[in-house]
Order: sequence, then C-alpha cells, then structure tokens
Amino acid sequence: MSTEATARLEEIYAPIYKDLGRLEEFLQARFHSEEPFLLQLLEHIQKYRGKQIRPALLLLVARHTARSVTDDHVKIAGVIEIIHTATLVHDDILDDAALRHNVETLHRRWGERAGILLGDYLYSRAFALSTEVAGMAQVLSVATNTICEGELLQIGSRFRPDLGEETYFEIIRKKTATLHAVACSLGGVLSGLRKTDVDRLHDFGMDLGVAFQIIDDCLDYSGQEAVVGKSLGTDLRQGKATLPLIYLLERLDPASAAELIEALRHPLGPAVEARIARQVRETGAVADSMDRARAFIDSASSRISGFDADLRESLDQVAEYVISRRH
Amino acid sequence: MSTEATARLEEIYAPIYKDLGRLEEFLQARFHSEEPFLLQLLEHIQKYRGKQIRPALLLLVARHTARSVTDDHVKIAGVIEIIHTATLVHDDILDDAALRHNVETLHRRWGERAGILLGDYLYSRAFALSTEVAGMAQVLSVATNTICEGELLQIGSRFRPDLGEETYFEIIRKKTATLHAVACSLGGVLSGLRKTDVDRLHDFGMDLGVAFQIIDDCLDYSGQEAVVGKSLGTDLRQGKATLPLIYLLERLDPASAAELIEALRHPLGPAVEARIARQVRETGAVADSMDRARAFIDSASSRISGFDADLRESLDQVAEYVISRRH
Repeated sequence: MSTEATARLEEIYAPIYKDLGRLEEFLQARFHSEEPFLLQLLEHIQKYRGKQIRPALLLLVARHTARSVTDDHVKIAGVIEIIHTATLVHDDILDDAALRHNVETLHRRWGERAGILLGDYLYSRAFALSTEVAGMAQVLSVATNTICEGELLQIGSRFRPDLGEETYFEIIRKKTATLHAVACSLGGVLSGLRKTDVDRLHDFGMDLGVAFQIIDDCLDYSGQEAVVGKSLGTDLRQGKATLPLIYLLERLDPASAAELIEALRHPLGPAVEARIARQVRETGAVADSMDRARAFIDSASSRISGFDADLRESLDQVAEYVISRRH
Repeated sequence: MSTEATARLEEIYAPIYKDLGRLEEFLQARFHSEEPFLLQLLEHIQKYRGKQIRPALLLLVARHTARSVTDDHVKIAGVIEIIHTATLVHDDILDDAALRHNVETLHRRWGERAGILLGDYLYSRAFALSTEVAGMAQVLSVATNTICEGELLQIGSRFRPDLGEETYFEIIRKKTATLHAVACSLGGVLSGLRKTDVDRLHDFGMDLGVAFQIIDDCLDYSGQEAVVGKSLGTDLRQGKATLPLIYLLERLDPASAAELIEALRHPLGPAVEARIARQVRETGAVADSMDRARAFIDSASSRISGFDADLRESLDQVAEYVISRRH
C-alpha cells in the first residue's frame, strides 16, 4: 500500500483503532493449529490481510450505533474476514494468480490440493464461529452461498462477451457486494438497530461493494501490478466480460463490435489481448466505468442520509476511499 | 453396483424405504437453480448419489428411536449427504479422478473452476440448511472443519511413508469417520435420546467410518475399477501411505523397508508403482488390513450392545455391508 493511502486509511479507521486491534487478536488466535503443516498454511495467509474494508465497515457501524463495540461485533467482523480470506484462497487457484498483496499465493507454494482444502477449512471454521452468536449463522451461510452462485454465474458466462450489463451487475452484486452488504447490516443487527435502519446499511454496503468491484475491474486494465499487488490483465485472458469491455463493445461501430465479440468467444493470443486492452483504455471505456462506479458511491451515500452525522461521515469516508483507490 | 450388493442394501434399507424417498425429494428440490449453468452442474452431481450410507445411518437411527421420522431427520440426513457430495467434488479435483460412480467427474467435464466453486456452493448451502434445525449448525460445521483438517493432515503427510499407524488413524478418523459418527449421533439427538446414548451412537459411527476408509484403502490396491466405479491405484501415485502400505513396510526386513521408504519419498514411475502394488497384495498386507477393518466393525457392534434389538440389528447389518463391500 502506498504511504499516502495508508495514512488516509489510518485516519478513516481512527474511531475503531482499538477494535481493529481486538480483531487482529481474535484472528491470530483462530489462525492457529497444533498441526505443523496446517499452522504453516494459516501463518502464510495472515499475510493476505489487506485493507480489511469489510470488517472495518462492521466495526465502524458498531462504533457509531452501539453503546460499546462488543465481543460479538469483533467475532462477526472476524468471521467475515475469514470468509473473505477463503474466497481469496480459492480465487487465486481459479485465476492461477502468482501474487496476493505481493506475497506468493498459497497454491503456488504448497499446491492446489492445499489451496482447495485450506479454503474449505476456512469456510467451515467461519461457519462454526458464526454459530456462537445468535442469529448470525443463517445470514452468513446464505451470503456465502450467494457469493458462490455469483462466481459460478461468472464461470458459466466466460467467453460470452455479449452477456450484457444486466448479467454483469448480477454477477458482481452476488460475488462481491453481498459481503460488504452483510458486513454493514450485521453491524447494525448486533447493535440492535430496527429493521429499516439495518436495511439501509445493507443497501449502502451493496452499492459500495458494486463500486468496489467496478474499480477492481478497471484496475485489471489500467493498474500497475507492483501497486495493485496482484497479477493483472487476467479478466480478458479468462474470457470475463467486465464493465470496461462491455463499454468498449457499446462504443464501437456495429461491424467492429460484432468482429470483437466473435474474437472474444475463444482464448486470445497475448498480442491480440494487448491490443484489446489498449483499446479499452484509450477509448475511454475505463474512464466511463469509473464514472459508473462514482454513481454507485453517490447512491451509497444517499442510502444513509437519514443517519447521524458521525456514522454517515465515517461510511462516506470509506466510500471515498474505495472510489479513489489505486490498488 | 452389483445386483447382489444392491439387493443386500435394499433389504437393509427396507425399514427406511419411505424415508429415503422423502430424502430423495428433499435433495432434488434443493439441487435446483434458476441459473441454467448452475442447474446443469447440480443435475450432474445427482448422479454421484451412491449407497447413501451416511444419511441412511441417520434415518435408521431415527426409525428405531423416534416415534416417527420427522422432517428435521430428513433435512439433516440431506444436509449430511450434501456435505459428503461437496467433499467428493473437491476430492475428485485433488485426485484428478476421471470417474465417480462410473460417471465423468464434474471438474473433468466443466473444468476445475466449476468444481472448486460448486463444492463451495454445496458446503454453504448445507450450512444454510442446517441452521433451519435448532442445535445442528454448530455440530455440522465443526465436523466439516475436522474433515478438512484430516484432509490437510494427509496432504502434509504425502511422500512421508514412515508416518506410522497413529497418524494414519488420526487422518482417517478426521477425514472420513467424522461424518459417519455425526450422522449416527445427530439421528439420536433429533430423536431426543439422552447424552450417553448419543455418545454410543457417535462411537459406533466412528468405528464404522474407520473400517469404511480402511476398506476403501484396500480397494485402491485390490479392487477392479469397473466394479468400484472410480480410478484406482491413486494412493501410491499421490504418495499417500495408507494401511496396506504401512503393513507392507512392517513386514519387510529392515534393509528392504528402508530402501522402500527412501523410494516412496518421491513420485514413482508406473513400473515401480505396479511392482510395489503387487507386493502389497501378495505379502498379505491387504488381507491384514481387512482383518483390522473387521476388528473395527466388531468394536462398532460392541458400542451399541445396550440398545434395543431392532436398532442394533439394523446398524449391525450396515456394518456387515461395509466390511463385505467390493466397491
């Protein structure tokens, strides 16, 4: 993370500085095992810990809505981070990514077997922990199921460049935004907020998560690997039609669009890939996608307009961070 | 399945004939999706449904201990079958198996991505369903976590032929027997049995599951692929030291054993593999392993000696089936 970005985030997280410490303690205690091999894997994935936006959202909601941030808040924030980590471990296998936060990915170091099973281990661990807090297990397991559904929908749509915006948004709502939404809403549930307020937090998280994924998809075209800290250019290679590519297709004349759609139905060579990626950047498709992400951030902000200033400001700051991130 | 074995199983399952029908209905309703791609995958893995020993154990316990087999019994039997199916889908990727019940494996047909995510989808689906019955979610998520721990322990022990019996038994208790144990004990919990009886059922399931896995490990050396319905000979290829190999090492003179242990530290060529597999069969190491499985079946039977004759007979029949199975 750049120094500037770290400073920004530290400022935004200031109200939950202590709570993030409690979260860290919770996670370290849970990422432990008596088995040397398992311990090695668990210690490795601790290095994947990044900006922790999802648990931070929950803790910020908690800090501004509850009398105090409880152990249950911290526990569920931790469960959400563990679920997120599990998706990362499996994602890296799916993408055969070499790096995660500039660290060698688990499956590259210990093989796919270990990667698949550690992901399963983390999921089941997270579910087991979630049953320790009343009312949490169902929401979190259903959310995880929705995430998987989104990922499967994306797999079923590979090399189908004409899938269209609607399917794209369904995929990213499910695979990405679900967990942001749940982080925000469960923060509210655990503080005893009434349903309408919980729903508003949920909608805020959903919009934020969608913007987050659009930015991610933009960075895959326009980011720098060293800054982003992971392999880039993978979407085109894997036949994933993300928003920048969808916008490019909309902006081409019909004949060129048809030609490109045809080409995208199959894996491309590196030269063609590079050419299309350049087109995506130079035609303004990335910039337009960023504008779309900005619209989701504005929508997110409007969802929480009825809340007290402290909570609103905190969540808006996270949203601003998400839209301005370069990694 | 051979006709004879099918007939045996039909007889054993006669008391729960109707309940298995309800289970089938439950599973078919849950293995459904509006998404065409996901539906395709879910329909494919329905063909994996085999002997259904785990849910049958739960339903047999239910039939003989409760006034009636409830929807909760059926639901949790279904959840256990879904968890089992998830492990199969991921196992097949780990083993790069081509066949499962003589059907093409999911990852071979739709790729590893689909396989990994469908497994995750099934796990999260199972957990979500388990939260619908009070007191089930924690036991089932902890059990699943234990299964993953066993699998990881096995991965960490690959190409370590001198791991010894103790580690072998820890691995198979965790990765296999846990789910048999939970199937039996939760059947009792849902019937309102007292804790000591639930514990006995648990121990029965644990012994049965250990025997089940030993037989599996024997079949990997001595079975016929067409009968067993899956790829065989994979343990040696993957550097897994199972009981037959451990027994072979114990039966060799020290010099030959040391030489073999050294050879087994690395992947072997097909010719060496075939030679060692023959040794395992011809030195009686498989037969000795079968004897050991028999001892676990006897132990299982002794665990339930205090129960009524009906339940005891039913469970003993399943145990006899497990020890005599050839697939």
